[in-house]
Amino acid sequence: MAVLETLPVLLPDLQSSSSFLSTSTIIALTVFFALLCACIVIGHLLEEHRWANESITALLLGLCSGVVVLLVSKFQSSQILVFSEDLFFLYLLPPIIFNAGFQVKKKQFFKNFTTIFLFGVFGTMISFCIISLGAYLLFKRIGVTNLGIEDYLAIGAIFSATDSVCTLQVLSQDETPLLYSIVFGEGVVNDATSIVLFNAVQTLDFSNIDALTALKLLWTFLYLFFSSTALGLVAGLISAYIIKTLYFGRHSTDREVALMMLMAYLSYMLAELLNLSGILTIFFCGIVMSHYTWHNVTESSRITTKHAFATISFIAETFIFLYVGMDALDIDKWKESNASAGTSIAVSSTLFALVLIGRAAFVFPISNITNCMKKRNNTKIELRQQFIIWWAGLMRGAVTIALSYNQFSSSKDISKEYALMITCTIIVVLFSTVVFGSVTKHLIEAMLLRHAKPAISDATDIPSLEDLNISFIENGDPSEEGNNPPPRKNSLRLLISNPTHTVHYWWRKFDDKFMRPAFGGRGFVPFVPSSPTGARDEAS
Amino acid sequence: MAVLETLPVLLPDLQSSSSFLSTSTIIALTVFFALLCACIVIGHLLEEHRWANESITALLLGLCSGVVVLLVSKFQSSQILVFSEDLFFLYLLPPIIFNAGFQVKKKQFFKNFTTIFLFGVFGTMISFCIISLGAYLLFKRIGVTNLGIEDYLAIGAIFSATDSVCTLQVLSQDETPLLYSIVFGEGVVNDATSIVLFNAVQTLDFSNIDALTALKLLWTFLYLFFSSTALGLVAGLISAYIIKTLYFGRHSTDREVALMMLMAYLSYMLAELLNLSGILTIFFCGIVMSHYTWHNVTESSRITTKHAFATISFIAETFIFLYVGMDALDIDKWKESNASAGTSIAVSSTLFALVLIGRAAFVFPISNITNCMKKRNNTKIELRQQFIIWWAGLMRGAVTIALSYNQFSSSKDISKEYALMITCTIIVVLFSTVVFGSVTKHLIEAMLLRHAKPAISDATDIPSLEDLNISFIENGDPSEEGNNPPPRKNSLRLLISNPTHTVHYWWRKFDDKFMRPAFGGRGFVPFVPSSPTGARDEAS
Repeated sequence: MAVLETLPVLLPDLQSSSSFLSTSTIIALTVFFALLCACIVIGHLLEEHRWANESITALLLGLCSGVVVLLVSKFQSSQILVFSEDLFFLYLLPPIIFNAGFQVKKKQFFKNFTTIFLFGVFGTMISFCIISLGAYLLFKRIGVTNLGIEDYLAIGAIFSATDSVCTLQVLSQDETPLLYSIVFGEGVVNDATSIVLFNAVQTLDFSNIDALTALKLLWTFLYLFFSSTALGLVAGLISAYIIKTLYFGRHSTDREVALMMLMAYLSYMLAELLNLSGILTIFFCGIVMSHYTWHNVTESSRITTKHAFATISFIAETFIFLYVGMDALDIDKWKESNASAGTSIAVSSTLFALVLIGRAAFVFPISNITNCMKKRNNTKIELRQQFIIWWAGLMRGAVTIALSYNQFSSSKDISKEYALMITCTIIVVLFSTVVFGSVTKHLIEAMLLRHAKPAISDATDIPSLEDLNISFIENGDPSEEGNNPPPRKNSLRLLISNPTHTVHYWWRKFDDKFMRPAFGGRGFVPFVPSSPTGARDEAS
Repeated sequence: MAVLETLPVLLPDLQSSSSFLSTSTIIALTVFFALLCACIVIGHLLEEHRWANESITALLLGLCSGVVVLLVSKFQSSQILVFSEDLFFLYLLPPIIFNAGFQVKKKQFFKNFTTIFLFGVFGTMISFCIISLGAYLLFKRIGVTNLGIEDYLAIGAIFSATDSVCTLQVLSQDETPLLYSIVFGEGVVNDATSIVLFNAVQTLDFSNIDALTALKLLWTFLYLFFSSTALGLVAGLISAYIIKTLYFGRHSTDREVALMMLMAYLSYMLAELLNLSGILTIFFCGIVMSHYTWHNVTESSRITTKHAFATISFIAETFIFLYVGMDALDIDKWKESNASAGTSIAVSSTLFALVLIGRAAFVFPISNITNCMKKRNNTKIELRQQFIIWWAGLMRGAVTIALSYNQFSSSKDISKEYALMITCTIIVVLFSTVVFGSVTKHLIEAMLLRHAKPAISDATDIPSLEDLNISFIENGDPSEEGNNPPPRKNSLRLLISNPTHTVHYWWRKFDDKFMRPAFGGRGFVPFVPSSPTGARDEAS
């Protein structure tokens, strides 16, 4: 690379071996970290215009730097870092998903659990079927013939993974709590479902397809789903129990935070070791940790974990988009696919059309089904809101890219079709994120502006500093209880008429009686006045 | 490995390809993270007896698991992860050093700057000379003959790097502020100095040694020292300026924290790119960030950065000790060195004796020199304290190991002598940390117990939550000023009689007049009552 050759000239005679690292690694990392900083600063400046967010900024910056590298290297390469699946699945994806579980507004999430579950699991499966089937039927007409049945199923799983960050940045949790919780909840459940589906597809043997293949796929999916969830719950509960029992706060905030991080990561690794879905495990581990463990640690640890996890997730996400932007100009892939621009565009458009249809095919029906089950008008999903939910899931992001690389670039003898699939994935992600993403803000504001009903905020489950102070003053008065008047009617009748709320009620009783006394949680850990200022105990 | 072969048997028919990662990576990471968790828990339980700390726990746990792996693999290998210098210098060392700079008690540090500087820079150089010369003269008698002059110089640098964490965990910042600040300050300056020395040794060409070599070495050292420091200062100031100007708090705590992390890391990478000492750069970047940047961010960001950086550093350090413990049983190295147990022990003892002498050779003289320069009795270093300072620097730790690997295992054709040097490094580190480390607590308590003069605490520069609240109430009344009565005498006379304090006084004037207005800092950023509770602004 030219960059490599010009630099040492600028330096005195120290260029020999004073560095511990290879120069190309250092250059790549320097450029990447500089770009990440630029993303944050530029994203912040663009924020005011709301045409762009960090994802779009990162994608475009990645594209620009790809162009620069391409020019500097005289059209030899546009890559600085080579994409490694290990990097993605070991370091980038786990913090993103863990943070989603950790920050999920549990109350809203479980209140709308039925709706979120229907959208996230059944919706994703419908979308998976439509995209797989559509690709199978249509690709042959475009001229893509060499893909196997498992590739089509993988394409279904890959393009079912949505990226709703862009919409979430526009939606307000206080003004439209229902919509926000559905879009957010569906987003994370969808990620997990599509990854589990992808795992299930990769696990099965498609060399002899019989009538049982679909059933096997379903069984594998269910097995992965429930065992991964169970592992995540157990890991979270163990972390809560350890921290509650050993009472680290006495010694050090750092150890509490370290233990939470390590346990979460350990659950992910254990799941991968047992061939389960690490993503699902770490997601549920995050939920349990925010429900129990988080309440057992010192005040400083709470603030630190809340923001540190969010920051790491934010960096990982920006990193991925930056990479995708850079990778879009990778000449080798374009050459390898050997397809005309027409074929690429045809395949990409087909895929994107399938995404649009596949999403519409479940959002509107499922919304109307859940509306029928609900009695109160203010919890029904209006047509306008259905449209927003549909729109929110059109963008494709990090998970799509990662799964696509995993399916289509892991094999050594990379075929034309495989290279084509990767370039088309990049086109779909770029197009949906940049074009749809930049319209989102204005579209949603136009749709919601005149109809906004200011609802009372449910606040956050993870309180900010002020909330913490208040909760210490009013200790022993868990504010959540006040919002849920305990049902006075016969509980069986209630369970039928209003299942989610009753389940929630019984869960709370169980939680308060058995779980919280054992694992800690809000109101079940004695308040220690000295713990927030425990700096003196921290010798290291 | 046997572990690899037995596991899939336990699983259902999912073991084929549902995982994205290679099984050996996953097993290695799972074991490592489980061990890290175990270190924290066991270290916490042992803490009460104070015979052990995390370093010792990690070393012993590493040894135990090394034995287990050795038995399981039928004496083929004791390693799970292969040590990679990249891992160490890219991911483990920077956070440790950055955190040292970030958490350094700046007031105490700069108050005792002359003493710390003399110990950290001149002391390390004296130690470097004695160990190099001693090894050069003594190794030939033991039978180690194949080392070149640059190897002996490298050995001097490698064994000059101390690890004073163990002592710092015992010393109390409130009871013995002078001692604590000297030991802590010397520790970080020493790390930097020895790494810069090591860099300088590696940079020079020893094929033709002339009278100028020593001068060249000194010049390289000075060049690296000052340019690296300047780069760190600039990077820190840029981060302060960006965050102050753009005022991120309005949008998101996560972005502030992310920007601080990324800028720090970027400064390290830039230094490595320019063939400077990244360690020194990131250390000074940490100091500047805690002096300026840290005061420009929201309250949540302050708590988060303080604890997140400490946690990452803590994990990195535990990781290194765990690794060293495991690596100690690496059979291949022992075989390769091909030395009798006698030779290994002779070389190790020689090295350790040189360490003891090299340290004594500067601690006691420099202490007495600084005592002569001081007028007030309570700032003089008593003989008892000199002994503790000497003792604190006898342990060898992470930096020693890393430098040793860098020097003696990077070359492809590894010689017997090089393998011997690595095993001896591990012996010295193990012995000094475990034996000396576990005695430290009792020794220091015995020396200090009857003589403790309870001094008034200078508190911490990075305040805890309580301090923050107070500082918001008493805003605009920087408490530091009260402790330093402004000099009334002629300032030139004062500069001669009491240089450090006068420098400190003029620096504060300059800081308040030019630096803080531009880059922010305590009392120079308007207090925004809403910022700590800015959770609602954080959409993502």
